[in-house]
Amino acid sequence: MKLGTVKNGTRDGQLAVISKSGESYTTVTDIAPTLQFALDHWDQKAPQLEAIYRDLNEGKISGQEVELAKFMAPLPRAYEWIDGSAYINHIVLVRKARGAKPPETLETDPLVYQGGSGVLLGPTDDIKLANPEWGCDFESEVCVVLGDTPQGVKPEVASKYVKLIGIVNDVSLRNLIPGELAKNFGFFNSKPASAFAPFFVTPDELGDAWREGRVHLPLITHYKGEKYGDPDAGPEMHFSFFDLVSHITKTRSYTAGTILGSGTVSNEDRARGSSCLAEKRMIEKIDDGEIRTPFMVAGDTIRIEMLDKNGASIFGAIDQKVVEGSN
Amino acid sequence: MKLGTVKNGTRDGQLAVISKSGESYTTVTDIAPTLQFALDHWDQKAPQLEAIYRDLNEGKISGQEVELAKFMAPLPRAYEWIDGSAYINHIVLVRKARGAKPPETLETDPLVYQGGSGVLLGPTDDIKLANPEWGCDFESEVCVVLGDTPQGVKPEVASKYVKLIGIVNDVSLRNLIPGELAKNFGFFNSKPASAFAPFFVTPDELGDAWREGRVHLPLITHYKGEKYGDPDAGPEMHFSFFDLVSHITKTRSYTAGTILGSGTVSNEDRARGSSCLAEKRMIEKIDDGEIRTPFMVAGDTIRIEMLDKNGASIFGAIDQKVVEGSN
Repeated sequence: MKLGTVKNGTRDGQLAVISKSGESYTTVTDIAPTLQFALDHWDQKAPQLEAIYRDLNEGKISGQEVELAKFMAPLPRAYEWIDGSAYINHIVLVRKARGAKPPETLETDPLVYQGGSGVLLGPTDDIKLANPEWGCDFESEVCVVLGDTPQGVKPEVASKYVKLIGIVNDVSLRNLIPGELAKNFGFFNSKPASAFAPFFVTPDELGDAWREGRVHLPLITHYKGEKYGDPDAGPEMHFSFFDLVSHITKTRSYTAGTILGSGTVSNEDRARGSSCLAEKRMIEKIDDGEIRTPFMVAGDTIRIEMLDKNGASIFGAIDQKVVEGSN
Repeated sequence: MKLGTVKNGTRDGQLAVISKSGESYTTVTDIAPTLQFALDHWDQKAPQLEAIYRDLNEGKISGQEVELAKFMAPLPRAYEWIDGSAYINHIVLVRKARGAKPPETLETDPLVYQGGSGVLLGPTDDIKLANPEWGCDFESEVCVVLGDTPQGVKPEVASKYVKLIGIVNDVSLRNLIPGELAKNFGFFNSKPASAFAPFFVTPDELGDAWREGRVHLPLITHYKGEKYGDPDAGPEMHFSFFDLVSHITKTRSYTAGTILGSGTVSNEDRARGSSCLAEKRMIEKIDDGEIRTPFMVAGDTIRIEMLDKNGASIFGAIDQKVVEGSN
């Protein structure tokens, strides 16, 4: 099923079940007021929501029309947002870009960081940029939403903790990263609020494109109205979501609604383009000795989407514009 | 006023107003079911809760007896837990302990990291340690809880965003830190769930001990039943909470209920002891060339408390035991 959150004037919005086509939705206040509530009571609520989804798809419920601007992030605030960096090609390129070596444990020990999760942007929310010198970049990623997850989960059994799948724009301020990493405490100011596509879907919606903890479909990015990249999110995800779940549960447990990101989707095949500006800038530098692509500035648009094998949008689109300003 | 969260079988517990003495409490379901709800509607709810607090203190409401074991963390899960490292003495000692230099920007650019906030321990919850080789340490800290906080707050106006003050045990797994920091993405597995004293209090409860964004009182740690340290949390907090608020709001905004920690409270005067084992271990190494103090093992107890000028406990005590196991 597909779930989303429509604006209703509250912080956490109102849970909505979306039709398979993504064209209509119905709110389900009597089942669960918010997506967090549904995740908190998933075993009980998921079957009830699935029943609504079937009725909506079969026309037994007449939904309202989906307009992207009505939708918030599916979780407008989450208890945790943890972002991996599971595509080796991205790590190698981006570290090269800032003159840093990949860690020695590149292929054996996953990279993850704890991101801010109290303010998450909706699919059409502007990216407010207070200072263009910060080097604003997008990062197109896949993410999963966990149910209650105990400590010590092995990859072999991680599947059952993955309740929902989505896509995310992990906005990054590249020029703030080197200074922050030099302090050795990880990213902070360099990672402003991330934005989410309007729908999270249950893994079964992806059919066999969801296998071995990876989403085997292209993640399509359009930047300034032009196709920028469509790398496959599957085969080159070195650490699967199951590996990432295992990694993050080494020393602690997680509450339902924890969001876990894949890191920037990236393929070695350059014909697939990129999912962020930093990679393209590095490729320019390697090939021509000169970076030509600037970071994002006010007026730039970024659209991120994933289509199923029939060309239908799975998660709805992230469709944002950079504007001057602050949150 | 003093606020806490009593267990009621739900994830987020039930908001309680605590008497000034810390001896009795009353739940306030008709005003706010949870502390997060109160923080989400603070301007409206705070005066109502203050009225209950007055009535409770004046005996107009007969409260129930406070038993520490009834209490969860005031926010059993929070939307963000951000921890600073504002005591220079701690940074210098701990970095020396792991053979690392303090950052060049030590005194001009605050250190903060994003911690996990989906599972926060209550005051008497066990510290479950799956592997003693991880080097389990406590860190006694002060923290503040923010209301809705916009981007770009200057230190001079940060005071109004600080709604509550508390104390926290930022449990750390020291032997996992060097490997994680070498990967350059900051702490992750090395920071399991933090534990909180039972009561958060409004800044006015501290009287003139709360000034210039610092808590000017000793933070008292007992380890294995013996006094371990009582450094003053005030004068040597190089970056005040107002400085930290300014730092974290550089590029994003925060939802009500965001918790911001001071970092391990530490004084240069060695007679004041320490607020973590890592400092003591480093001092032993510097003085005697040999570390004698081991990290925590199953059976160890840790108690953290702050007393007002009359010797009364302000936040109630963190009183935990290390046990073998996982969450």
